[in-house]
Amino acid sequence: MLRLLPQETKFFDLFEAQAAKVHEAARALEELARNYEQVQEKARHIKVLETQADHITHDIIDKLNRTFITPFDREDIHALASALDDVLDNIEGVASRLALFHITSVTHEVIQLTSIIEQACGAMRQAIAHMRDFTKISEYLIQINHLENEADTISRTATADLFRDAADFRELIKWKEIYGRLEATTDDCEDVANILEGIVVKNT
Amino acid sequence: MLRLLPQETKFFDLFEAQAAKVHEAARALEELARNYEQVQEKARHIKVLETQADHITHDIIDKLNRTFITPFDREDIHALASALDDVLDNIEGVASRLALFHITSVTHEVIQLTSIIEQACGAMRQAIAHMRDFTKISEYLIQINHLENEADTISRTATADLFRDAADFRELIKWKEIYGRLEATTDDCEDVANILEGIVVKNT
Amino acid sequence: MLRLLPQETKFFDLFEAQAAKVHEAARALEELARNYEQVQEKARHIKVLETQADHITHDIIDKLNRTFITPFDREDIHALASALDDVLDNIEGVASRLALFHITSVTHEVIQLTSIIEQACGAMRQAIAHMRDFTKISEYLIQINHLENEADTISRTATADLFRDAADFRELIKWKEIYGRLEATTDDCEDVANILEGIVVKNT
Repeated sequence: MLRLLPQETKFFDLFEAQAAKVHEAARALEELARNYEQVQEKARHIKVLETQADHITHDIIDKLNRTFITPFDREDIHALASALDDVLDNIEGVASRLALFHITSVTHEVIQLTSIIEQACGAMRQAIAHMRDFTKISEYLIQINHLENEADTISRTATADLFRDAADFRELIKWKEIYGRLEATTDDCEDVANILEGIVVKNT
Repeated sequence: MLRLLPQETKFFDLFEAQAAKVHEAARALEELARNYEQVQEKARHIKVLETQADHITHDIIDKLNRTFITPFDREDIHALASALDDVLDNIEGVASRLALFHITSVTHEVIQLTSIIEQACGAMRQAIAHMRDFTKISEYLIQINHLENEADTISRTATADLFRDAADFRELIKWKEIYGRLEATTDDCEDVANILEGIVVKNT
Repeated sequence: MLRLLPQETKFFDLFEAQAAKVHEAARALEELARNYEQVQEKARHIKVLETQADHITHDIIDKLNRTFITPFDREDIHALASALDDVLDNIEGVASRLALFHITSVTHEVIQLTSIIEQACGAMRQAIAHMRDFTKISEYLIQINHLENEADTISRTATADLFRDAADFRELIKWKEIYGRLEATTDDCEDVANILEGIVVKNT
């Protein structure tokens, strides 16, 4: 009977570790955009973080398979772990494309968007740190929604500008993809927020 | 105890209001395509409708947080509200891109696709109006699936034609994006239909 | 009371039939890529398989509506049927675009990616065949995840190569779309794996 509390604690610990890893990757992407040099190396480092996070995700699923009593619904634990995984997959996808497409310098909008992603991942991490007691979660979720809206506006305008300014079709297509992936990353953060909101809804 | 019925009624009312707003935006998009003028103003109006719908979505989530007994599963209420929100986000995304990309005239296929979206949103609204008794929901869901298939065929053919006809890479990419977003909107309508189908499955 | 077992059996039978149809379409796509001729006819045949699978999907939903006791959660049955449907939709989408875009020959990477999709669909089929007892499901799910990662790497590199090699903007955009759809198909296989994993998590 005494195992109940430790079990719960372990799930929260694992989610905090996963969210910390996602946040670390978001920071690395923002740093890459701000100091745009050694792109291959920095992208490879983000790939390493993704692999580390994958191990945590598998730990969560594994633990789920071997735990009878969980702090909240099994399917929500599963959905949250997958959604956090998706955010990091997208962060890695942006970094790897900057390297693969041989992008030699980034625009102001890329710096803005990576900064928004870093903030959204920070808010996700805070929300997850408050899952034990469900206090203040809402404010972080609202923050993530605002950040997603902001990213949407920036990437739309940046894409529209591309149509006006890009001289070469390769450049237009590459950049449209980069902006699209950056925006998709904030969409994924919003998915995490929606899952967290759903968990709050069920458990309060 | 007597609060049970009013509570339920209120959720249905809110979903009907949200579906009505989505339908209104779909109508506005279809009107924009048919009478393609004052694009900036019309796109801005759709943005206003989106903001109004957002308030209803938040009302639903808020109400969900403060209600103990709900007419169907809390997670389904949450999923349905989010999915309706996604449809309107995409409708607004199409309108805003027509304006942002400085598209000066629309094709016959855009008119067809916006008309299909309007019909699908009308069917969603009807299905939601029948959620109180679950009668006739299936026929609306079948209708939405048919409309999605139709949209798929039109947008694929239109995209294939683009590859043959577009003289300029900017035009090709812009139009491919517009067709893609229009198709994605009908995919989102199908997601709503799938969620409604799931609710019917659980509650009948 | 004795109806319980037959009912359950029927659901498993239907899922096996649906997974077999998805696998058949994946094989047809792989064969189309390897022997790239009579593209219109082969694409039309895959469309026929998709329609046949749609009927099975509707059988599952229909049966779900008329069955009181199901072998696992109703919403999971619904989610699994929809996700298998999505895989086949994407397979058909690739075949139809090869035909519609008048692609005259395919690259080595297309052959590799369709082979990966065929393997992933085979693994999905095996996993579903093991749903009755939940044994060995995990190894198939791990296999699907590995295949998805592999597809991701191939399609990213192929897309990066496109930017370097494509002489014409139409070619670049067409091929980018083909690679994107092929990768999306393996993502959909991963979604099926995630749903199966969630079912295992809830039922063991």
